[in-house]
Amino acid sequence: MNTRISVIGAGECGPDTEAVAERLGLLIARNGFDLVCGGRLGVQLAACRGAKSAGGLTIGLLPGLDFSQANDFVDVPVVTGLGHMRNFLVVKNGSAAVAVEGGAGTLSEIGLALKSGIPVVAIGKWSGIEGVYPAADADDALARILSLVKR
Amino acid sequence: MNTRISVIGAGECGPDTEAVAERLGLLIARNGFDLVCGGRLGVQLAACRGAKSAGGLTIGLLPGLDFSQANDFVDVPVVTGLGHMRNFLVVKNGSAAVAVEGGAGTLSEIGLALKSGIPVVAIGKWSGIEGVYPAADADDALARILSLVKR
Amino acid sequence: MNTRISVIGAGECGPDTEAVAERLGLLIARNGFDLVCGGRLGVQLAACRGAKSAGGLTIGLLPGLDFSQANDFVDVPVVTGLGHMRNFLVVKNGSAAVAVEGGAGTLSEIGLALKSGIPVVAIGKWSGIEGVYPAADADDALARILSLVKR
Amino acid sequence: MNTRISVIGAGECGPDTEAVAERLGLLIARNGFDLVCGGRLGVQLAACRGAKSAGGLTIGLLPGLDFSQANDFVDVPVVTGLGHMRNFLVVKNGSAAVAVEGGAGTLSEIGLALKSGIPVVAIGKWSGIEGVYPAADADDALARILSLVKR
Repeated sequence: MNTRISVIGAGECGPDTEAVAERLGLLIARNGFDLVCGGRLGVQLAACRGAKSAGGLTIGLLPGLDFSQANDFVDVPVVTGLGHMRNFLVVKNGSAAVAVEGGAGTLSEIGLALKSGIPVVAIGKWSGIEGVYPAADADDALARILSLVKR
Repeated sequence: MNTRISVIGAGECGPDTEAVAERLGLLIARNGFDLVCGGRLGVQLAACRGAKSAGGLTIGLLPGLDFSQANDFVDVPVVTGLGHMRNFLVVKNGSAAVAVEGGAGTLSEIGLALKSGIPVVAIGKWSGIEGVYPAADADDALARILSLVKR
Repeated sequence: MNTRISVIGAGECGPDTEAVAERLGLLIARNGFDLVCGGRLGVQLAACRGAKSAGGLTIGLLPGLDFSQANDFVDVPVVTGLGHMRNFLVVKNGSAAVAVEGGAGTLSEIGLALKSGIPVVAIGKWSGIEGVYPAADADDALARILSLVKR
Repeated sequence: MNTRISVIGAGECGPDTEAVAERLGLLIARNGFDLVCGGRLGVQLAACRGAKSAGGLTIGLLPGLDFSQANDFVDVPVVTGLGHMRNFLVVKNGSAAVAVEGGAGTLSEIGLALKSGIPVVAIGKWSGIEGVYPAADADDALARILSLVKR
C-alpha cells in the first residue's frame, strides 16, 4: 500500500485556489503518494485532476450513497452515507492532510485530523490554528509533507 | 420535546473552566432546555452536574460502546461506537452549541456545527472563528442562546 | 440508568402485530425497563405507545437528521444521520432485543445484535434463526427477557 | 468505474469454503468486476486472493482504524472506524453481493443489502432467506450475478 496524503479544502473555489490544488495533487502523485479526498468538487476535483495528470491514484470518500457524486478524476469512489461524519474518514485514511482554503467543513476536518494524530499542513487560510504546519504554496506543502511522513 | 443545547469543550479542565461549565449547565436547565454533550469528563461532566443541580435533563452521546464511559450526571447515555465521528451527533442533537475551551476535538465540533447550520457560542478561546458568537461568560452565553433559539 | 430493552420489527404493520407490539411495550415499562427503538412507525410506534401507557421511558434512535421523524410516543429522540447503519445502535443501546415481525431491516438488526453479543427474542417470524430465542407472544417474550437480563 | 461485486461470508473457514470463495473471487475478476469486501480473513481473504490471481482490483472496507487489519490481497484498504456498522458499506459499495457461509455478521450484511436494494446471491447456507438468490457453487453464483447487474 502506498502512503496516502489527504487533500481537504473549499468545495467551490476560484481559479487561483484551483491552481494551487491542482499543483498539489500533481506533486502528491509525482512523489509516489496516493491521494485521498472527499471525492467531490472545488479543491477536491482540482487535486484529483492534478494527481491523474501525473499518473497517481485517487480515492474519494463520498458523503452520500450515490457514486455519481464523485468527480471525474476519482479512481476509487467509496460511498459512506455518513454525511459530514465522513470528514473524519477523509483525514484518517491518509498519513497527513493538506488544507487549501475552505470553510467550516474544512475546519472540522482539521480538528478531526489533529484530534486523531494526523498532521495537517495548511496553505493560506488555516495556518494560524495551533498544531497546523503553515505552507506558502503547493511546493512548500509537499516539502513539509516529505518531512512528516514516510513514503 | 424540549429544545436542547449542546455543550462542547475541554475533556480535562481546571477549576475555573469547570466553574464556567457548571454555571452554563445550570443556566441551560433553569431556562427549560435539555442538555446534550459527549457524556464524558471535564466540561461535559461539569455542565451535566450544573444541569442536574437545576433539575434538568442530560443526554450523553458516547464515543464508544460502553455505558460506563458516561459521567455520573448523564441521565440518558447513548452509545454510538463512532469514535470522533460522534462529535457531529453531539452538535446536531441540539439547536445550538456552546463551547467552553477545549482542543482539537472541540474545534472539530465547532466546524461540524457551523457546516450543518447549528449556531455556536464560544466562551473564551474559540470566539475568533468566523461565524462563532463570542460570549464573556456563562450568563452572557445563555443570553446569546436565548436570542438564537426558540424554547 | 435503567436496563433497556430494544424493540425491533415491522415499520408498517396490521392491527394484530400492532397489538403484540403495544402489549410488549407495556410489559417492558411495567417491569421497570426503558424502551429503545428506531423511533419511527409500525411496531416502533405501537411499542412506544404501550410503554408510555405504563409510564415508561422511550428512546428513539432515528435514521436521519430530522426530529420530526420520531413518532409521538418517543420521549428522547436522537438523530443519527446514519441511515440503515443506525440499526446497530438500536440493538446496541439495549441489553436485549425483541423482534416482532418485520423484513430485511429487522433481519439486519437481528444479525447485528447476535454479532455484538445482544440476546434476541423473536415473536413469530424470526424464531428459526440460530441463536434467537423464540417466544409465543409478548408475555412469553417478556418472561424470556427476565431470564436473560438483570434489571 | 468498474462494476463491483461484494463478497461476504465467514471470517474463519475451512478449506472447502475457502476454495469456493477463492473461485468466486477469480470469476469476479475474470468477468471484469472489481471486488469489495470487509478486507479481513476467511472468505474475504480467499476471495481477494482469487481476484488477484486473475488480475482483479480488490477493495477492503475495514471495521477499525488500523490498516494492518487488511489481508495481503487487498489493493485499496479503507479504514472506517465503524465497527459492525461498516457491514452496510461493504454491501452498499457493490452492485450485488455474494454470501459464502458465515454467521451473524453475514446475516446482518444480507439484511442490510436487501433493505437497501442490493441483490444478494447465496452459496449454501443463506439461500433460504426470502429475497436471496440461491446458487449451487461459485460458477452458478457468477452466472446469477451476470443476470442481475450490468458490467
